[in-house]
Amino acid sequence: MRKVGIIGLGHVGATLAYRLVTENLVDELVLIDKNEKLAVSEEYDLLDAQVFLTGKSKIIIQDYQALKDASIIVFCAGQISALGDDGDRFRELDITSKIVEEIAPKIKHSGFDGIVLTITNPCDVIATYMQELTGFEPNKVFGTGTMLDTARMKQAVGRKLAIDSRNIGGYVYGEHGDSQFVAWSTVTAGDRPLLTWNKELDLAELDEDVRAGGWKAFAGKGYTSYGIATCGAQLIQMILNDSKSVVSVSAYNKQADAYYGQPVVIGKNGIESFVDCQLTEKEKDSLTSSIQIIKNGLTYLPYKQ
Amino acid sequence: MRKVGIIGLGHVGATLAYRLVTENLVDELVLIDKNEKLAVSEEYDLLDAQVFLTGKSKIIIQDYQALKDASIIVFCAGQISALGDDGDRFRELDITSKIVEEIAPKIKHSGFDGIVLTITNPCDVIATYMQELTGFEPNKVFGTGTMLDTARMKQAVGRKLAIDSRNIGGYVYGEHGDSQFVAWSTVTAGDRPLLTWNKELDLAELDEDVRAGGWKAFAGKGYTSYGIATCGAQLIQMILNDSKSVVSVSAYNKQADAYYGQPVVIGKNGIESFVDCQLTEKEKDSLTSSIQIIKNGLTYLPYKQ
Amino acid sequence: MRKVGIIGLGHVGATLAYRLVTENLVDELVLIDKNEKLAVSEEYDLLDAQVFLTGKSKIIIQDYQALKDASIIVFCAGQISALGDDGDRFRELDITSKIVEEIAPKIKHSGFDGIVLTITNPCDVIATYMQELTGFEPNKVFGTGTMLDTARMKQAVGRKLAIDSRNIGGYVYGEHGDSQFVAWSTVTAGDRPLLTWNKELDLAELDEDVRAGGWKAFAGKGYTSYGIATCGAQLIQMILNDSKSVVSVSAYNKQADAYYGQPVVIGKNGIESFVDCQLTEKEKDSLTSSIQIIKNGLTYLPYKQ
Amino acid sequence: MRKVGIIGLGHVGATLAYRLVTENLVDELVLIDKNEKLAVSEEYDLLDAQVFLTGKSKIIIQDYQALKDASIIVFCAGQISALGDDGDRFRELDITSKIVEEIAPKIKHSGFDGIVLTITNPCDVIATYMQELTGFEPNKVFGTGTMLDTARMKQAVGRKLAIDSRNIGGYVYGEHGDSQFVAWSTVTAGDRPLLTWNKELDLAELDEDVRAGGWKAFAGKGYTSYGIATCGAQLIQMILNDSKSVVSVSAYNKQADAYYGQPVVIGKNGIESFVDCQLTEKEKDSLTSSIQIIKNGLTYLPYKQ
Repeated sequence: MRKVGIIGLGHVGATLAYRLVTENLVDELVLIDKNEKLAVSEEYDLLDAQVFLTGKSKIIIQDYQALKDASIIVFCAGQISALGDDGDRFRELDITSKIVEEIAPKIKHSGFDGIVLTITNPCDVIATYMQELTGFEPNKVFGTGTMLDTARMKQAVGRKLAIDSRNIGGYVYGEHGDSQFVAWSTVTAGDRPLLTWNKELDLAELDEDVRAGGWKAFAGKGYTSYGIATCGAQLIQMILNDSKSVVSVSAYNKQADAYYGQPVVIGKNGIESFVDCQLTEKEKDSLTSSIQIIKNGLTYLPYKQ
Repeated sequence: MRKVGIIGLGHVGATLAYRLVTENLVDELVLIDKNEKLAVSEEYDLLDAQVFLTGKSKIIIQDYQALKDASIIVFCAGQISALGDDGDRFRELDITSKIVEEIAPKIKHSGFDGIVLTITNPCDVIATYMQELTGFEPNKVFGTGTMLDTARMKQAVGRKLAIDSRNIGGYVYGEHGDSQFVAWSTVTAGDRPLLTWNKELDLAELDEDVRAGGWKAFAGKGYTSYGIATCGAQLIQMILNDSKSVVSVSAYNKQADAYYGQPVVIGKNGIESFVDCQLTEKEKDSLTSSIQIIKNGLTYLPYKQ
Repeated sequence: MRKVGIIGLGHVGATLAYRLVTENLVDELVLIDKNEKLAVSEEYDLLDAQVFLTGKSKIIIQDYQALKDASIIVFCAGQISALGDDGDRFRELDITSKIVEEIAPKIKHSGFDGIVLTITNPCDVIATYMQELTGFEPNKVFGTGTMLDTARMKQAVGRKLAIDSRNIGGYVYGEHGDSQFVAWSTVTAGDRPLLTWNKELDLAELDEDVRAGGWKAFAGKGYTSYGIATCGAQLIQMILNDSKSVVSVSAYNKQADAYYGQPVVIGKNGIESFVDCQLTEKEKDSLTSSIQIIKNGLTYLPYKQ
Repeated sequence: MRKVGIIGLGHVGATLAYRLVTENLVDELVLIDKNEKLAVSEEYDLLDAQVFLTGKSKIIIQDYQALKDASIIVFCAGQISALGDDGDRFRELDITSKIVEEIAPKIKHSGFDGIVLTITNPCDVIATYMQELTGFEPNKVFGTGTMLDTARMKQAVGRKLAIDSRNIGGYVYGEHGDSQFVAWSTVTAGDRPLLTWNKELDLAELDEDVRAGGWKAFAGKGYTSYGIATCGAQLIQMILNDSKSVVSVSAYNKQADAYYGQPVVIGKNGIESFVDCQLTEKEKDSLTSSIQIIKNGLTYLPYKQ
């Protein structure tokens, strides 16, 4: 039986629940939110949807004990209004770190022994904090990190070349935040290295397009939901299928002693191995800087003080 | 090529767009909202999602001309905040009738020649108004009506009997509003007439459960989205597949000279025929009363005055 | 983890494997056939297919031990060439009963503790024999029985009324063989009892259409595969989802002390309960006769002699 | 409306039909085979399957006129028994070229104006012949070519590295036959060039694995169906979605004046452009040789003599 829990039923958590139910990607789904009435609403709205669907996922709400035998918990509790006008995700840390402090012990206490996937921002810091406060093995706690940013890169490059974004390869590395960067040396289009394409490619312009794409998705509604929820659902399927898929997520790298966005192999044990894409020296410098920013963020965590 | 337009990108419209894109139920999707920035956001958020999906739907925004060769337009513009605390959907009519007056001519002017599916409330009145202002054939304009209410009935009965809601048959008739009613004589469970089941069935209690189910889906978030969007997506698939499916929607009935919820056959021409379920006398009375309430609602439309 | 085994990789077993893999309805799939090279072929052909798909199902071949922790085993080993020109499925019994005798102990010995779904013909007798030789609880061993015949009835009625076959309700009861019958009192179209439709319905003609539909599916290729494999996949999803769905399958009925086609509730425990559709007296007589034919078939089993 | 025709209902054509129907990838499906009874069987078997599915595809059989407004015709008529024990697909040419001569005029005469996708072997020669005999634009006639071989390469590399085959990039070029070759310079794993992986990669061994994978899929059943049918279905979705996807198929290359397997961009116009992966000199030589073999094959066509 495939059982997954979602903690936090804001735009992201609820959309993820909808995706899991419509695709029947789980047999049981545990939904938890601090607002019980909201959890009830989502339960009933999803049950209504199910009448029009093929598969059936059992929905359980507000029950931490039900997480005990779940395979995956998705942590997406947060407060987008804390983001601020400048889009700096670190502004959310005050609130979201407190939520982790409240939730992590409950997860542990439930007897849960699976994978924790964190989406809450600032993603890399929150993944770190969740791992530390649960004490789970680092491979079993990771964040969506730059997986969504990588998708946005693929959109931007695909649009530029008039090629399906699913045929764009490569990764965004580092912080799921301003210091992230596209590792252009890894990017391919139709499996041909992008840097060898004869179109006049202006990487700075493409970098700007990637950034702008994320901003456009956010600006008009004050949050994003469809991209990130679909990303989360895909990660869940990869874990449940034990598919050994390669994606860029926020994983704990022992060498750097930090969580940051990088390509890894995902399977039933969470992060199963790493893919070293042999970045250029310049990219390595960008990565070092980005990791440093994540580490700086960690110093704001209460327990570090 | 399957082309569908959605006018109004609130919770329902945006969730419907997400469903159509994730299932690749359309090849082209036209999204229109009075808030252009919102349309841009949804476009980019959906494009991000698409990187993680199999099919690809082209997304066009804010272009009424692009509706010309669409097969279906879903009208779901509205303002849920107008609903009021008592849940009376007629309170929305002041605002939503004005939106119809603004949009209907634009639809006509685009040269569109397909099916208009209305979700906006009060659903039966708005479907009527949309048909009148576009002048399209009545079979080509219909509302989701009691299709969602029927799903809620199926949930309630399925829960009571511990049977999958997809194995509950029968219909909710009448207004998509307080005067609707479950035609219990039509309800089956596992294809056995419900009224012959030996469980002590308290229909009044089930009626209350149906009502309560809808309210629970609504109360915690102040709107519903997943049930109705999934319902809309299913109707779209039925039309595009020309599937001759039987569902209860708000269709124009010539005999009653009114739009109301009733079982019909759906195909590429919209409402292709009606299914007469031979209601009991008591049910017929309830239907007559419910239709009268819809007709009363019509008198509030500006053009009727 | 959803794990399913298929024993017998003829047209039905292989098509079922394809369906389970393309829909990612299982996380692990165990394929077993007496012809090892065939199993290898299907494994590699399915792996090739998987490159073009979204989900990933691990494929294991020729390993009875791998069935130990499976949730479901589908038994579809047989030899269609034994069917004979008259289409009498009892002609297959000589061969298929011997296969059950060979396979049942291997299933038991593997430590398997789930549901056995039998497709092999004559379906009702083979389901009986499989239950007896494994000694598993009767609710955990059942055959596809008249589920496919019911689908053919839905096709015939839907075609007649120009209504989607998915909107036809009701059941074929009895033997998955010549003595089966449509219980017309249970049949609905658009949830309206068929017998109340005003079209001049000639039930004898419809009975003939049902029979002819099955024959047409068979005649041109000498077997059928797509209908029955899709049926099997749906049953698997119902069990894994614990969906409490109502379908007509060959289940053990204590009162009649026999396996035969009848509507039941399917869940994670296999046959969870029965739906009594209150057949007419004439239908009850037909059922009694059909059950007797199944019982006669049992007397040909070696162990009964 | 998405309308697709399949000519030839052997293992590949029938499995493709099943895939298109189960996924509802088409709204109308035209099935044609020289054996009318077979076409009837497949029609009824697919209709039976549809009762258990969500979408509904209308099925039309044996009607060339119905192809007039189809978007795509898949040509997969052939005779696998002609293949011979050495697996040389050119042995099929005698028979399959005659089938093309019979079918091509019928396609033209129907008024069909869409894309012809050929699967019949020898694939590159048959695609060439189909284009010549229909006189359609070369971009609108292409063969599946090395798309399946590329999938087999991905399987082999993925197996070697314990990475999901969907995360392997790169292409098999040239003939869909013995002279084909993996262009290892294009192959990536997790978007990292394979040749930079530190595992001791023995390319000759991998080459052998690719070949062996294809053979294993074939040997046990004497044909393959699931991989190639899934490949065909994906190409159909790419065309209908106008997705601009990059895949390796047998397309007409003007410079070489030949059809051969190479990466192209697929959209609603068929082959929309080419992706030049900048092969190494050695790979270019292999390609030249492979193209020569295809050209030699063409000399066996009757009209060339």
